[in-house]
Amino acid sequence: MPRTVGILSPGDMGHTVGDVLRQNGLRVVTCLEGRSPRTRELARKAGIVNLPTYQTLITEADLILSIMVPAQATSAAETVAEALQKVDTDMTYVDCNAIAPQTAHRIGETITSVGGNFVDASIIGPPPRTPGATRFYASGPEITSFLELKEYGLDVRPLGDEIGLASAIKMCYASLTKGLTALCTELLTAAELLGVSEALAEEFQLSQSVLYERMERGLPGMPTKARRWIGEMEEISDTFADVGLTPNILTGAADMYRLVSSTHLADLSPEARDQFPTLRELITTLAEHNSKKNG
Amino acid sequence: MPRTVGILSPGDMGHTVGDVLRQNGLRVVTCLEGRSPRTRELARKAGIVNLPTYQTLITEADLILSIMVPAQATSAAETVAEALQKVDTDMTYVDCNAIAPQTAHRIGETITSVGGNFVDASIIGPPPRTPGATRFYASGPEITSFLELKEYGLDVRPLGDEIGLASAIKMCYASLTKGLTALCTELLTAAELLGVSEALAEEFQLSQSVLYERMERGLPGMPTKARRWIGEMEEISDTFADVGLTPNILTGAADMYRLVSSTHLADLSPEARDQFPTLRELITTLAEHNSKKNG
Repeated sequence: MPRTVGILSPGDMGHTVGDVLRQNGLRVVTCLEGRSPRTRELARKAGIVNLPTYQTLITEADLILSIMVPAQATSAAETVAEALQKVDTDMTYVDCNAIAPQTAHRIGETITSVGGNFVDASIIGPPPRTPGATRFYASGPEITSFLELKEYGLDVRPLGDEIGLASAIKMCYASLTKGLTALCTELLTAAELLGVSEALAEEFQLSQSVLYERMERGLPGMPTKARRWIGEMEEISDTFADVGLTPNILTGAADMYRLVSSTHLADLSPEARDQFPTLRELITTLAEHNSKKNG
Repeated sequence: MPRTVGILSPGDMGHTVGDVLRQNGLRVVTCLEGRSPRTRELARKAGIVNLPTYQTLITEADLILSIMVPAQATSAAETVAEALQKVDTDMTYVDCNAIAPQTAHRIGETITSVGGNFVDASIIGPPPRTPGATRFYASGPEITSFLELKEYGLDVRPLGDEIGLASAIKMCYASLTKGLTALCTELLTAAELLGVSEALAEEFQLSQSVLYERMERGLPGMPTKARRWIGEMEEISDTFADVGLTPNILTGAADMYRLVSSTHLADLSPEARDQFPTLRELITTLAEHNSKKNG
């Protein structure tokens, strides 16, 4: 049974996962080298122990969960692999990030080539503050020790012994939720620029009320996550292209999050709910920003 | 008040619109030159009078409604413009198609340059069999005679006197409904190819049940419309690009409808509901077809 779990890195999702494991009796550690003040504060709040080096981290942790922006997943694994070359340990590295199956394969090779065990995992749902809201999918030949976290508050579900399956389900799932959000953001911005915003909102309330309520609920908080979603959309685009399907829908979603990321709204933190724009404010901000950008 | 309305062409949407107008006391005419046996049969059923030439059509009709595949909208207007050069008439040409605002502008110039009146219109909703289900948006300086069709069973709503507004609302609206359908089709096909179909369906039933029910309800009939939706997605892509937004999401949607169009499922007629595939059959067909295509 795992005793000590490392979290890289304790951001919004990571520190909540760490908090759950700690509350369920595990020791939770991390290495904050190069991390932001916000991440340091989140780690402190969640009672996650900061270890001085990656070598100490992989020596003390039975499992390391990599939970971060997808664009950083590969370099985090390389940092751990470097430390693994210098230490003799039976540690298991669990990549929980929103990455393409082929990226998970590459990261797996980085870890196993220096003697580590590797699990492909993915997280569907919000940070696990509410029991039952979040699933942890896992696949690969060495998932047993990660599955044991079921006893410590995580809903871990095995998908089979192939690396890539856990990443695949996340890619397909996120393409729906975040792809739809990108599409809605684009079409509302287009409607604003084309002068049909009000008539479209009325038409949506009449004939697409469920989707329109989803926009009103989901879009105002989106800018705080837009920067990390760019890389996630690109991972999904690669995933779809790799099986011969069009990359364009998700490339376009990345384009939209790039536009949102270039506005001041992307500087808000996900905790600053009282500063979130209304749907209307979000769309007029994007429309103005887009017009300026295009001269 | 209009007495005679021309419909080009009386396909699925067009013949239903014609039927409503005829039942409300108007004479409805068309010209079936070059039309399919199915369109001829639909026109006959709806009591739409077939006139021998376009010159007769524009002479007899007070209004002509262009309702067809977006890819044919321009050439239909050119045919009417050619006839207009030879006939003295006060006829109004109403383009109701799913086209970009800039396409509506071009078609408007084609018509007005030879003395015709032009209305930019669009249709949101299914063929108007059920009262209250379908809206006809209209914009432009000459919409009065088209607005009078409110008295003859059509829910016509004015959007202002600029050509392009009615097309714009349709583009934004259809990007949501048909863009989402394309995205869902792609991600379910990807999940099938990646071996996570069942786990994803379970996850969707758990955490995205509203969207999953929409897929189960909407996707099986989609292949019968996929061929005409390719052009519609390209019109939306042009619309978004024209205001400086990414064309990629909608270009990708066109790619998906192109894939669907190349399967035998696209040969079914929209009336053949008993032959529609289940969602599962649709997705396995697309996955197999995609694998073959990519060798």
